[in-house]
Amino acid sequence: MEKEIHNTGSKSIQEITEKCNFEKLGGLIPTIIQDNATHEVRMLGFMNKEALEKTFQEGRVTFFSRTKNRLWTKGETSGNTQTVKEIWVDCDSDTLLIQVEQRGPTCHTGKDTCFSNQIK
Amino acid sequence: MEKEIHNTGSKSIQEITEKCNFEKLGGLIPTIIQDNATHEVRMLGFMNKEALEKTFQEGRVTFFSRTKNRLWTKGETSGNTQTVKEIWVDCDSDTLLIQVEQRGPTCHTGKDTCFSNQIK
Repeated sequence: MEKEIHNTGSKSIQEITEKCNFEKLGGLIPTIIQDNATHEVRMLGFMNKEALEKTFQEGRVTFFSRTKNRLWTKGETSGNTQTVKEIWVDCDSDTLLIQVEQRGPTCHTGKDTCFSNQIK
Repeated sequence: MEKEIHNTGSKSIQEITEKCNFEKLGGLIPTIIQDNATHEVRMLGFMNKEALEKTFQEGRVTFFSRTKNRLWTKGETSGNTQTVKEIWVDCDSDTLLIQVEQRGPTCHTGKDTCFSNQIK
């Protein structure tokens, strides 16, 4: 990867989450989950500020589930957790890309990725 | 890729777009753009039904720009177009993943990808 790496070692989690624009989508930020090893895109979820803070603190991906209307740590039931390797924010600070080490399949159907239905 | 390939050759564009859930996010569906050659995630945009239909018809990616409040064909000004290679929909039909051949850089900053700011 030829991306620039900014040292964030000295910054607090709060300083980092404040750089993300949660307002554009009513408190949520779309978050792409990519497999760190295969580069396969596994899923997309949404995070609120609390979910991002929890993800930083625990090193495992937690989303805000719109269906459940609560924080939802991926794998909390299935055990198929996502360990955070890298977190990137895009140029206008309204989307996240997280590289993860995925334990087991990502999809509730048992498939590796949620994107298993090709329409073109 | 070990994904299943469904034959959509005989389906109309309308039949395909009707399979996508645009209602969950007020008429828009988040769309991940991934480089077909390098598997790098380049950007995320939003499509409404009209943008997806145009993307199918022309074979180039068109989004609905929330900022411009209109259809926005990627590269219409810069020339850095995205030619569609594959389109995948996720397990609950509310997110798209498009594999593209990207001409030039994706980001308005001149970088290959919009995800060039690492926060962890």
